[in-house]
Amino acid sequence: MSSVPPSRIRRLTSAMATQDLDAMVVFKPQNSFYMSGFNPIIYSHPVVAVLCRDGESALLVHALRDDHARAASFVDDIRLYGAWSSKVTMGPSWKSALATILEEKGVAKGRIGLDMDFLSVARFRELEEVLPDARLADASEAIMQCRYVKDPDEIENARAAARMADIGMDAAIAELRRGGNEREIASAAMAAMNRAWTDDHPDKEVADFGNLEHGVQNGLFAWVLSGERMFLNSDNPTVRVPRRGETASLFIWSVLDGIHIENERTVMIGDVAPEKKQALEAILDIRAEVFARIRPGTPISDLFDCSKAGLEARGYGKYIPGRIGHSMGLGAHELPSIDAATQVPLQPGMLLAIEPNIRIPGEVATQISDTVLVTETGMEQLTRSEGGLLRV
Amino acid sequence: MSSVPPSRIRRLTSAMATQDLDAMVVFKPQNSFYMSGFNPIIYSHPVVAVLCRDGESALLVHALRDDHARAASFVDDIRLYGAWSSKVTMGPSWKSALATILEEKGVAKGRIGLDMDFLSVARFRELEEVLPDARLADASEAIMQCRYVKDPDEIENARAAARMADIGMDAAIAELRRGGNEREIASAAMAAMNRAWTDDHPDKEVADFGNLEHGVQNGLFAWVLSGERMFLNSDNPTVRVPRRGETASLFIWSVLDGIHIENERTVMIGDVAPEKKQALEAILDIRAEVFARIRPGTPISDLFDCSKAGLEARGYGKYIPGRIGHSMGLGAHELPSIDAATQVPLQPGMLLAIEPNIRIPGEVATQISDTVLVTETGMEQLTRSEGGLLRV
Repeated sequence: MSSVPPSRIRRLTSAMATQDLDAMVVFKPQNSFYMSGFNPIIYSHPVVAVLCRDGESALLVHALRDDHARAASFVDDIRLYGAWSSKVTMGPSWKSALATILEEKGVAKGRIGLDMDFLSVARFRELEEVLPDARLADASEAIMQCRYVKDPDEIENARAAARMADIGMDAAIAELRRGGNEREIASAAMAAMNRAWTDDHPDKEVADFGNLEHGVQNGLFAWVLSGERMFLNSDNPTVRVPRRGETASLFIWSVLDGIHIENERTVMIGDVAPEKKQALEAILDIRAEVFARIRPGTPISDLFDCSKAGLEARGYGKYIPGRIGHSMGLGAHELPSIDAATQVPLQPGMLLAIEPNIRIPGEVATQISDTVLVTETGMEQLTRSEGGLLRV
Repeated sequence: MSSVPPSRIRRLTSAMATQDLDAMVVFKPQNSFYMSGFNPIIYSHPVVAVLCRDGESALLVHALRDDHARAASFVDDIRLYGAWSSKVTMGPSWKSALATILEEKGVAKGRIGLDMDFLSVARFRELEEVLPDARLADASEAIMQCRYVKDPDEIENARAAARMADIGMDAAIAELRRGGNEREIASAAMAAMNRAWTDDHPDKEVADFGNLEHGVQNGLFAWVLSGERMFLNSDNPTVRVPRRGETASLFIWSVLDGIHIENERTVMIGDVAPEKKQALEAILDIRAEVFARIRPGTPISDLFDCSKAGLEARGYGKYIPGRIGHSMGLGAHELPSIDAATQVPLQPGMLLAIEPNIRIPGEVATQISDTVLVTETGMEQLTRSEGGLLRV
């Protein structure tokens, strides 16, 4: 589609130079999309992106996906395997097709980086057989590090996806106020986001990246946990109607052209017990303290430590979570994780879900998350629907 | 949740006996759900199901997922790793926790079957380190073969999911008739399915199985390809309004408690060119011929051959597709595939999407699929929305 390779391609080839790789060959849906701009949605036939250190690239897809790949990818060199209708292909097997491509590109005897955090053992063994002269190395971490910092097109998608997530949250809160059950609240949010997608983003996709046995046509998701269900994380919504005196957590995930955004709110329904309100107030204060530290150079673990100190100072020292957020991007939960162990410094262009939280089993659970972009001087909050102490 | 192990557990332990495995340890979301009944939806923290040959099982999850796993799983022995709030866990690492569990079950020095069609190379290498005395074998195929035949609870979910898919298709056709664009048609179908889920299936989930960087809260999907977009397979819908003289393909995927159903229709909009109508009539006749062969004992390749012969007899011999359907179940596209190479005989309880098709590049594309259940004497068509030559 676009013939201009985006700047991430330069980051990837520079990572190859550092790691002494002659090429990267990737299978993870997020990674092949990153290198090609093509998301076939269904991955039961392998999609393989090849990028050489000199910037040359190729995309290998099943014959069935020929038209779609040509319409969507910024890679010009599209190759086919398999059989479908009258398409001419390199043969029935993607493996020998891949071997031929690497031979042509002059890297079949080189050092090849694979995304071994995804590539299955079974497929790896097939690759070893068909590429006997290649030296196969793990490039997972190098690729993920390139993904840490978002490109301008990705940032534009993030801002637009955040507006959609806000529309979803507004619709969810309105349906909660109306007295809908958990599923009705989620459905209202998803319908509002789909309407916004149709009206405001005619040239963008909301497909997500599935696993190899299916596909995700629509990644505009909402879910709800109310009352005692607050402790079930990401459980599917039920027909339970949230009741007065409870809190309800509303979760929104939106996606545009592969870039994910998270917006979560915990809402009081009428008057709630003092310890619930106190926990919400505490977490809102701690969030503000964490936000104030977000700027280039701050080690990610500082954000976790700040939240931990805030919890301890307020008497919640027994209830420290394992992490208080994560990177967003082609994954809704991708690395780096915001935890005690991650000392990576913040960089402009990082996209993070920030979600300090308190969970006291059986008593209190808070779930409040906003997606922020690290800027040159601090941060830009992308999700901007009503925050603070929410009550319906 | 249920303490009665379903009959698939007996099939799995019997497969272990045949393959001389002492235990299976699985990581693929579909497989850990199959062995435990637990779908956390988000898999960025590993979920590991263990099943021993004697039927003993355990489920290892992150501390964060404790309450959800206990509420949802039919496995009683739930183990925790990681840190979250005041949960007591086996330690920070899922790997050493797994090693301890296998030690306790007396299989740490045994032959362990892994789902190597999913398990990443990176994770496999970690397992090799932490389980130095185990013999690690590939159990992917054995597990998939157990999944070929559905259990009574899965068949009940399939029938219910098919009714939802039919409701989605009816809504899609109504919106096509009204003049909606591709996204409006898809949104109408998804809203109708979510309504049916809320009203008719209070105790069922519509979550799907994601990959490891995100989660799929809602697997009720619809998409649409119209006019020249017919050739783009599973591309995301656009704001294009289908026009008179074109055909439009409407795709519905529904899911209930993990079991997937497919319903696809190609609809003529007003009068279409004779070659389009002829292709639709041909494929409907071929489908009928394929359906007539579905009964226990028929090799799956016979269905493909029947479709191929039907295409050749009608002058479409240059446009043979690579396959004419696939198994459905915990995957929307799972094995076996209905192609020339798959000689597995049909068995009662198999759930298949049957979709012979014709694609003449730039001219004609048909996309008609129904999900059928193989019975003792033939087949039961599960998706039953209006079929035949459809026209709006």
